[in-house]
Amino acid sequence: MQSNQPQHPFDLATQLTQQKPGMYSGQTSSAYANMVGPFGGVIASTLLRAVLEHDDILGEPISLTINYAAPIHEGNFSIIAYPSRTNRSTQHWYIELKQNDNIVITGTAVTAKRRDTWSSTELAFPDVPPADEVTRTPLESAPPWAQNYDIRMIKGAPLAMNPTQQPDSVTLQWIKDSPDRDLDFLSLASICDAFFPRIYVRRKAFVPIGTVSLTIYFHANAETLKHNGSQLLLGHARALKFFNGFFDQTGEIWSHNGNLLATTSQFVYYKE
Amino acid sequence: MQSNQPQHPFDLATQLTQQKPGMYSGQTSSAYANMVGPFGGVIASTLLRAVLEHDDILGEPISLTINYAAPIHEGNFSIIAYPSRTNRSTQHWYIELKQNDNIVITGTAVTAKRRDTWSSTELAFPDVPPADEVTRTPLESAPPWAQNYDIRMIKGAPLAMNPTQQPDSVTLQWIKDSPDRDLDFLSLASICDAFFPRIYVRRKAFVPIGTVSLTIYFHANAETLKHNGSQLLLGHARALKFFNGFFDQTGEIWSHNGNLLATTSQFVYYKE
Repeated sequence: MQSNQPQHPFDLATQLTQQKPGMYSGQTSSAYANMVGPFGGVIASTLLRAVLEHDDILGEPISLTINYAAPIHEGNFSIIAYPSRTNRSTQHWYIELKQNDNIVITGTAVTAKRRDTWSSTELAFPDVPPADEVTRTPLESAPPWAQNYDIRMIKGAPLAMNPTQQPDSVTLQWIKDSPDRDLDFLSLASICDAFFPRIYVRRKAFVPIGTVSLTIYFHANAETLKHNGSQLLLGHARALKFFNGFFDQTGEIWSHNGNLLATTSQFVYYKE
Repeated sequence: MQSNQPQHPFDLATQLTQQKPGMYSGQTSSAYANMVGPFGGVIASTLLRAVLEHDDILGEPISLTINYAAPIHEGNFSIIAYPSRTNRSTQHWYIELKQNDNIVITGTAVTAKRRDTWSSTELAFPDVPPADEVTRTPLESAPPWAQNYDIRMIKGAPLAMNPTQQPDSVTLQWIKDSPDRDLDFLSLASICDAFFPRIYVRRKAFVPIGTVSLTIYFHANAETLKHNGSQLLLGHARALKFFNGFFDQTGEIWSHNGNLLATTSQFVYYKE
């Protein structure tokens, strides 16, 4: 960051102050507020940032699981992050966010040094129109966090926004930070959670929902992410099953030019 | 279990002795050994069992993430499991397995009381021949753990077993415990990990691999699992991307009669 440029709202929202090694303080950001409490994607990125800013980190993020154990209140929080185990090329992390001495979020992460080796992408890039041919979806009535993204829905908007009966919960959307921000692991983690809840694609009512657990696998290194710059990413998400109060969401995030950057899954509580 | 019946090898392999509330001791099982160390599926089930046998458990398993931080040595281990947070209908758990005071496995789980409500399965049951029309795959040369499963591969056997070039890593297999055992959350968790590594479907060489993180979402309650009894389950797994030393695997486990019981993902280290 250049000192004469204002920080991006995302960097402010995920900002941590180190109290001592592995212990941080932070605060929720009104810019990324959700219906209730802060947007879970930014919270996931904030916990990941506690790992990335740790002096002992080995390599780059490989996987991340964040468990949303209780509602986060607006205001201050503390985070601890420590390596559970450090191996030669991989490292396992535990992360915890507390408010008023209560555990609110738990997480685990794996970081690693990658080696150049045989690689292969099996999944095909979805058949979609280019980003510049898709208009930005008006999201003025969406929660504050959505105002920080340029989202261009190709398919699978919430039913309340686009009252066409849809046979499934599949969403395809182009997405990037707004204002522009160069992609990194932190913003990618957040974008993995920036799909509207699958149940809103299937059902018109905005029933209470909440992610209980989110997992992200990173399929790219820092260099690849940097190469994407601030160009639009393609996101695909769907649910496989809704059952008695919980549904899953699986998703993939692709770079503007068709590189699979991350795959993600989450399990979400819903109250119908 | 009736006292006059011998315990199933799976129940013996996952058996824990409670030392005090939330602290257990256990030992690896030679019956479920893998190439190196124990089969990760049985280890995941053992950590889940530490939650299920905890006096304070609320409801049934919803999600489980297990991080394989270091190789497990044959022999004794200790497990701690505690609720990080207990809410009205959901509960978040932290679980840890140690050997010689070193953290070897970390995990988090969510349990919950479900409510009967609107439900929907979006994913279609795969187009496969019935289990009784598929012959059991000979696995004598596979590691010990595989001898405890009746696996009937329909598609996507390891390339070394079936040297037909395959365009993708998709595997479809019928599977059940052998000898028979009625399905429950513990055996289902293990079956989520009972696919041969995706890279062996794509590449002939048995390169060193190791799961670093495994996530399971349960889409069924205990009653549904019990109803399956010991009938064969259908498993589907595939990789989406292999990149510089890590690949993902996503999978689904269906009951014999087409009920989606669990969805799962894992991230796996490979050394080519």
